[in-house]
Amino acid sequence: MKKLKRSQRLVDMTHFLLEKPHELLPLSLFADRYGSAKSSISEDLAIIKEVFEGEGMGELQTLAGAAGGVKFIPRMPADEASSFIAELCQMLEQSDRILPGGYLYMSDLLGQPAIMEKAGKLIATAFYGVEIDAVMTVETKGIPLAYATAGQLGLPVILVRRDHKVTEGSAVSINYVSGSHKSIHTMSLSRRALREKSKVLIVDDFMKMGGTIRGMVDLLGEFGAQVAGVGVLVESEVADVKDRLLHDYVSLVSLGEVDARERIISAHPGNYFAGRAQ
Amino acid sequence: MKKLKRSQRLVDMTHFLLEKPHELLPLSLFADRYGSAKSSISEDLAIIKEVFEGEGMGELQTLAGAAGGVKFIPRMPADEASSFIAELCQMLEQSDRILPGGYLYMSDLLGQPAIMEKAGKLIATAFYGVEIDAVMTVETKGIPLAYATAGQLGLPVILVRRDHKVTEGSAVSINYVSGSHKSIHTMSLSRRALREKSKVLIVDDFMKMGGTIRGMVDLLGEFGAQVAGVGVLVESEVADVKDRLLHDYVSLVSLGEVDARERIISAHPGNYFAGRAQ
Repeated sequence: MKKLKRSQRLVDMTHFLLEKPHELLPLSLFADRYGSAKSSISEDLAIIKEVFEGEGMGELQTLAGAAGGVKFIPRMPADEASSFIAELCQMLEQSDRILPGGYLYMSDLLGQPAIMEKAGKLIATAFYGVEIDAVMTVETKGIPLAYATAGQLGLPVILVRRDHKVTEGSAVSINYVSGSHKSIHTMSLSRRALREKSKVLIVDDFMKMGGTIRGMVDLLGEFGAQVAGVGVLVESEVADVKDRLLHDYVSLVSLGEVDARERIISAHPGNYFAGRAQ
Repeated sequence: MKKLKRSQRLVDMTHFLLEKPHELLPLSLFADRYGSAKSSISEDLAIIKEVFEGEGMGELQTLAGAAGGVKFIPRMPADEASSFIAELCQMLEQSDRILPGGYLYMSDLLGQPAIMEKAGKLIATAFYGVEIDAVMTVETKGIPLAYATAGQLGLPVILVRRDHKVTEGSAVSINYVSGSHKSIHTMSLSRRALREKSKVLIVDDFMKMGGTIRGMVDLLGEFGAQVAGVGVLVESEVADVKDRLLHDYVSLVSLGEVDARERIISAHPGNYFAGRAQ
């Protein structure tokens, strides 16, 4: 790489750090990359740190010593988080989302990578400081959110399938009760997918009674793995919370009554700001 | 936002541009954000442009006039592309991927957001300059690649389902022949998901005879939409290419013989560098 001026180095380093969240990058990597002294690199990083942390875009952690370096932990600023959640609520309240049976069409929202990216950053922010080894979801609609979250955390995604596929090798299957309809379903996870004692963040697009997520919790039990947390994009309010199969989770949006006759949907912020996210 | 120095502005602007690929950002947005003159912003952008384009990280397009602004088009530098493809081949050649029936376990690769991010950037780079309105894939394993590609292109993802779900509203279903086994399957797409005359980039994780992708092409036909291109992570070589149901595509990796007895897999670069990607 040709010798860059400080202004140019700052652009390149910002790009480099943003592409590798949660990765420990030794100062020597930058020193070699730019043919600069480590002291100059430290000054550059101090400027980047000031901007990132000043704007609430994330933390730049510096670890001293031979094994040291710098690590970027992305976060979403609180004001951006609340305006994003408000925007989500507004989009969900569009009356043409109501489908027969009172279901809500959400595929257009879930289909926008920029929205998923922000939602994933928000869930990653909510679990800041929690020790996590992997992000888990069950196919299909939670997948983009799980990848966005895992990308922000620098972690792999473990994908639970609805049935056992030949391309997954030997697998563990469990049955679970879907709370809303009390119907029995199966989910299955490749034996290779998860190491024992892993700490796993469960992510999904939608939760009502929590039966599907409860199924993933049980599946983790089968692998001797642990739940590090649960994050959902939308929780649907239930008549009696005691009926819910799961109580400890972070939600971005809470969906109230869907009045299919009057075509009114009410959505308001989930427990993101109320709960452990603080 | 408090007044920033040039060095600080460069960090913030780089972050801002990287988060919004393909979005036209007016200079006044930056001028307001930093309380700076447009002339200073133009100078900042010139520095960023020089670094981005010098390193092959993408293009910074400047559009003059009242409706003008700046737009970041991400690209992957050619040297990074070839080392990434070589790395993919190496990972795919690990003999413990072989499953009964000669299938290959790929879920660990597909489960790494950083790998999907790079693969998506590569496919986006391959279709640089092609007019595209949306990225389409069929559940399940192609989803992360489709989102990564669409994210780089600033486009929505259209997700085809294997069966018709209540949460999708009215849908169009078609039958298709899966080439490898000549078996009949169904795929289905919500009527709301796709506008007529849309130009669609089809993305998938794996292609052998091309039957699944052919199904998506047929589905596009049902919606009066057009194929803008096809990108796959891995193509599997076939004995006679004439049997393939699809000939115009971009692949990152080409999978040769899988010798289940000797436990040997051969993978080499796909047509990314050979074909239209140039």
